[in-house]
Amino acid sequence: MTDTVPKTMRAAVLRRVGELVLEERPVPVPGPREVLIQVRAVGICGSDVHYYEHGRIGDFVVRAPLILGHEPSGVVVACGADVTRLSPGQRVSLEPGVPCFTCVECRLGRYNLCPDMRFFATPPVDGAFCEYVVLHEEFAHPVPDSLSDDAAALLEPLSVGVWSARKARVGPDTRVLVTGAGPIGLVALQVARALGAPEVVVTDVRAQRLAVAAELGATMTVDVTTTSLADAEVEADVLLECSGAPAAIGPAIRRVRPGGRVVLVGMGGDEISLPLAHVQRHEIEVTGTFRYANTWPAAIALAASGAVNLDRLVTHHMGLADTERALTITAEDETALKPVVRPQE
Amino acid sequence: MTDTVPKTMRAAVLRRVGELVLEERPVPVPGPREVLIQVRAVGICGSDVHYYEHGRIGDFVVRAPLILGHEPSGVVVACGADVTRLSPGQRVSLEPGVPCFTCVECRLGRYNLCPDMRFFATPPVDGAFCEYVVLHEEFAHPVPDSLSDDAAALLEPLSVGVWSARKARVGPDTRVLVTGAGPIGLVALQVARALGAPEVVVTDVRAQRLAVAAELGATMTVDVTTTSLADAEVEADVLLECSGAPAAIGPAIRRVRPGGRVVLVGMGGDEISLPLAHVQRHEIEVTGTFRYANTWPAAIALAASGAVNLDRLVTHHMGLADTERALTITAEDETALKPVVRPQE
Amino acid sequence: MTDTVPKTMRAAVLRRVGELVLEERPVPVPGPREVLIQVRAVGICGSDVHYYEHGRIGDFVVRAPLILGHEPSGVVVACGADVTRLSPGQRVSLEPGVPCFTCVECRLGRYNLCPDMRFFATPPVDGAFCEYVVLHEEFAHPVPDSLSDDAAALLEPLSVGVWSARKARVGPDTRVLVTGAGPIGLVALQVARALGAPEVVVTDVRAQRLAVAAELGATMTVDVTTTSLADAEVEADVLLECSGAPAAIGPAIRRVRPGGRVVLVGMGGDEISLPLAHVQRHEIEVTGTFRYANTWPAAIALAASGAVNLDRLVTHHMGLADTERALTITAEDETALKPVVRPQE
Amino acid sequence: MTDTVPKTMRAAVLRRVGELVLEERPVPVPGPREVLIQVRAVGICGSDVHYYEHGRIGDFVVRAPLILGHEPSGVVVACGADVTRLSPGQRVSLEPGVPCFTCVECRLGRYNLCPDMRFFATPPVDGAFCEYVVLHEEFAHPVPDSLSDDAAALLEPLSVGVWSARKARVGPDTRVLVTGAGPIGLVALQVARALGAPEVVVTDVRAQRLAVAAELGATMTVDVTTTSLADAEVEADVLLECSGAPAAIGPAIRRVRPGGRVVLVGMGGDEISLPLAHVQRHEIEVTGTFRYANTWPAAIALAASGAVNLDRLVTHHMGLADTERALTITAEDETALKPVVRPQE
Repeated sequence: MTDTVPKTMRAAVLRRVGELVLEERPVPVPGPREVLIQVRAVGICGSDVHYYEHGRIGDFVVRAPLILGHEPSGVVVACGADVTRLSPGQRVSLEPGVPCFTCVECRLGRYNLCPDMRFFATPPVDGAFCEYVVLHEEFAHPVPDSLSDDAAALLEPLSVGVWSARKARVGPDTRVLVTGAGPIGLVALQVARALGAPEVVVTDVRAQRLAVAAELGATMTVDVTTTSLADAEVEADVLLECSGAPAAIGPAIRRVRPGGRVVLVGMGGDEISLPLAHVQRHEIEVTGTFRYANTWPAAIALAASGAVNLDRLVTHHMGLADTERALTITAEDETALKPVVRPQE
Repeated sequence: MTDTVPKTMRAAVLRRVGELVLEERPVPVPGPREVLIQVRAVGICGSDVHYYEHGRIGDFVVRAPLILGHEPSGVVVACGADVTRLSPGQRVSLEPGVPCFTCVECRLGRYNLCPDMRFFATPPVDGAFCEYVVLHEEFAHPVPDSLSDDAAALLEPLSVGVWSARKARVGPDTRVLVTGAGPIGLVALQVARALGAPEVVVTDVRAQRLAVAAELGATMTVDVTTTSLADAEVEADVLLECSGAPAAIGPAIRRVRPGGRVVLVGMGGDEISLPLAHVQRHEIEVTGTFRYANTWPAAIALAASGAVNLDRLVTHHMGLADTERALTITAEDETALKPVVRPQE
Repeated sequence: MTDTVPKTMRAAVLRRVGELVLEERPVPVPGPREVLIQVRAVGICGSDVHYYEHGRIGDFVVRAPLILGHEPSGVVVACGADVTRLSPGQRVSLEPGVPCFTCVECRLGRYNLCPDMRFFATPPVDGAFCEYVVLHEEFAHPVPDSLSDDAAALLEPLSVGVWSARKARVGPDTRVLVTGAGPIGLVALQVARALGAPEVVVTDVRAQRLAVAAELGATMTVDVTTTSLADAEVEADVLLECSGAPAAIGPAIRRVRPGGRVVLVGMGGDEISLPLAHVQRHEIEVTGTFRYANTWPAAIALAASGAVNLDRLVTHHMGLADTERALTITAEDETALKPVVRPQE
Repeated sequence: MTDTVPKTMRAAVLRRVGELVLEERPVPVPGPREVLIQVRAVGICGSDVHYYEHGRIGDFVVRAPLILGHEPSGVVVACGADVTRLSPGQRVSLEPGVPCFTCVECRLGRYNLCPDMRFFATPPVDGAFCEYVVLHEEFAHPVPDSLSDDAAALLEPLSVGVWSARKARVGPDTRVLVTGAGPIGLVALQVARALGAPEVVVTDVRAQRLAVAAELGATMTVDVTTTSLADAEVEADVLLECSGAPAAIGPAIRRVRPGGRVVLVGMGGDEISLPLAHVQRHEIEVTGTFRYANTWPAAIALAASGAVNLDRLVTHHMGLADTERALTITAEDETALKPVVRPQE
């Protein structure tokens, strides 16, 4: 490790529900095949807000102080033993979940389903609202200089969009419906367009978000507070459900045509009523996404080419000391899309 | 048309709900590429019973007298113009739905989703509870002599099983759960075994049916009136839902492992509550089957090799005059699996 | 049929090898589900030139006078019986091969493999170097006004590119190598880019064509007369072989990485030596394209969005009387990419 | 490690081409997540013979003394640190190649393409012609008691058959052609039948092997020394090429129907001439297999159910001291299919 790396660092720690405190923590030491990364930018995700407000997501319960943040970018500053793919100075986007590599799911290539996944900011694994993190070198993806630190961080939500589009088999003959114009909906929209989808309809309950959707390539937007999808005569081959709103799912599925695909990206509760007769009659495929696997190469390509604009999603920048405020803004400020924390500022 | 074909025939006609009457009808004349088939055996399906009892299935409403029956086998007795693939005397199994051939769905190879499908015994198209029917030659599939008339008829429900297993990608590394041990569940079970599935668990509420399932290859049976799937510690990679019972679907889906597939074969109502969080967390794929496409070659192969035993499903034989009784037995007799009507007897 | 349609028309007829003559022919009459189309633009394809020069392609032998041309666009001027999807005045792009619709291949959705396909300009079926043609309404695809007549015609070669990219599963994590920068290579390149491919290397033996490739989005071009692919250190996940040059195939396949796909689009002779050990060691998939199926919706979307530029490929315009010259130019003029015949001019 | 494990063991070591010597070697010590396995049975593979006779296979060159043998079964006798899935006494089949787990290929689930694979009996990695080996616990697959030690060993070649059938998408509507009735051809045949393939034609140049093929389920056999595939009017949807004979490949591919699949399992040299026009005209997919991935569960299921008979392939049993003779027999004895070495005898 180079001389310039300090022994301690600042970290924004969730001590208990609703209490996020700046603490002094030791800088982690990279193990074999791990690199030490100075964090440059971390996007705020709805799940960060959820842990902050509720202390749990489903079975994942915060039982000890936890560092949140799982959308980071940074710069490699030191390499552990056996690191061969990276060297200090490289700018990287962090894929924030490292699987066990050897279980059945990992061997099948669907490592996102690994039961022993260690995922940033998911109890008990710390995240990236701090100055330094360590990561397996294969999960620290080098990014081109053309990508900003913010964009490199937001390759994480972009990966969610890439993964959902891949599961939905989006292409140039696919009409897409995206329900929900939050950050995930806005990347899903852009990915669909980047893959050639000629029609991408986006719905939301906020006009402001729909305006951003239109700016980013939606061919039609529907404010579902005033217009139903049926009245709007929307027809889609693919539904990317990004709202997580149970009320949105049924009417949206009914707009999907025979042989279509439905991918549930937003999380909407344990049990939800679905129009199964429509699904069955038209042999629609319904599935969900849980994180992603093998998406960074595609995400980097889409962002680097300009096909997907990630910087446009960033609405706020803050320092580490303002992480709590960033969480609050994400939750409460209707204009907020994606606040970004910059630990070095 | 040969001299031996009469001008009129007997047909069991559904005049109104609960009234099935034997009528004299003209023998149909095969059009171009159609063959005239003397019907030898017709399986009774739950949907026949449903039309008989309710006069409708979903949007399909019986508005005029209708001949039911869509699981027929028979013998070609005459060929229309341009018929090149069949000749009189050939024994055939009838694929009972002929699509438009030219629409988008047909051109994509998923002709079962053709909006202009003409399907036997689906209003306003007559079915096969009669002595003669006509059919497009490509949908009258020759069968080997080793298959009985009954088995040739039951290639139709077998096709449902083939289609569901294909959608579920069943193979020798797939643990399968079949919910419902009616005729469809029993063919689904057998197809799964024939494709190498090492474990096929079958559930039902009737011990008698579970006994048949065990006889036909189930590696485990669960009577869900006394044992829950969770208590039985069932784990499956694939769920073939053949019961149509809304109460069965949720608990069954919860037994499906990461990356698994759920195929809804039974029809259970318009809206059903599903454990979506489980689906999403484990990226399970859920779809349904609507009839089938391109399944007869596989069905013939599976039945002809003995891998699937269709004759075992036949519990009753009746003449055309007893068709109404066959429907009643199917509905009410707990020992009935598959009554078969033999119009020539 | 409207009054404005004449009884006879001009047609450029291949009488024998090397002899193309303008003849007076009856205007064809649309049958059921067919439309009569006034031809506006027809691209010249290498296969037209091949028939003109050799009188045959493989097993297809010109035995009677034949109208060439299979890349047409036009305007519907009359509709036969039972036409419901089109009406006079609509601008259409012609998918020039109509299958039998009912055979096994058609029912499987791969109608391009139909043994009874009737394909324009393939003996004994006449093509489109004439003023009017008839076509099944499902194969006359309406195009938006934003597409020129030329572009609507060139949706046919674009379909070849769409089909090859689909078989190769091109996406944003795919590095693509396109061998051959003729019209097909140039659409393949553009399709790959439109589907997000971050790297598309194009090779050819003519600097001029490579310059067009670079203009249309190639990230690297290689003149294989001076630089080998190995020396250029090209690595690809997908090879779209569009040169048909036997010498090009082997070295190109050796640049394909593990798990990659090779699609042979150009035709290079009956028997070709392949580096099978490389294919096997890396489990590369090799296949070929034969025309296309279900590609027009994607092709229209890609051309209409501007993602693919078809007008750029057009190097010459001629009237029907100059069809023979158009063929000669295609064969001999090194600057020629895609001459277009406009029968109405 | 238990007291009963000795410090040294006997191993059959390839010292140089044509010289295999019994040596005393230290018993290996299992590392973290590794188990020590007492070897019970090891099948002889053609590649063992090839190393013995030529000292190399392609780029893999024997530069130091090497223990051959990569088809082993055995019993766990000791567990290294962190082993959780196995315990001493368990009978296991050994998947003989352990990948790096973390590279791009591994993360995609195609770990057989891992460039850092450590594969038994592939220089410089020792194999299993010895008394004890160590292996990662995830690659030592428990087998049911119903499988003999021989069958457990031969799950390795069975995996080759499973992998090839999976790539070829063999099912109950697939007519299969297997060229070559050696051990691999005979497992490929059996797998195809076990997956429901109604027709499996097997070819070879030795009548004796064809007789075994017929016994194991081939629906037709062709002695290609006397009858050509064309004369035999063979038609196949899938070709599993298991002969590695260059002369066999071309004629076999020409028997594959439109949309069919060709999987090259046997290795036949670096460059081979293929009937590419046939491949292209019919959009046949050609690929090869390189070892296998994720096949053991399927292989165990197929062998345990009796669908595949592995014991039938075993023609000779020998002790470790006779390993060299086993190699010679495999090479020279026409009646030999699969000699098995039993190091404990």
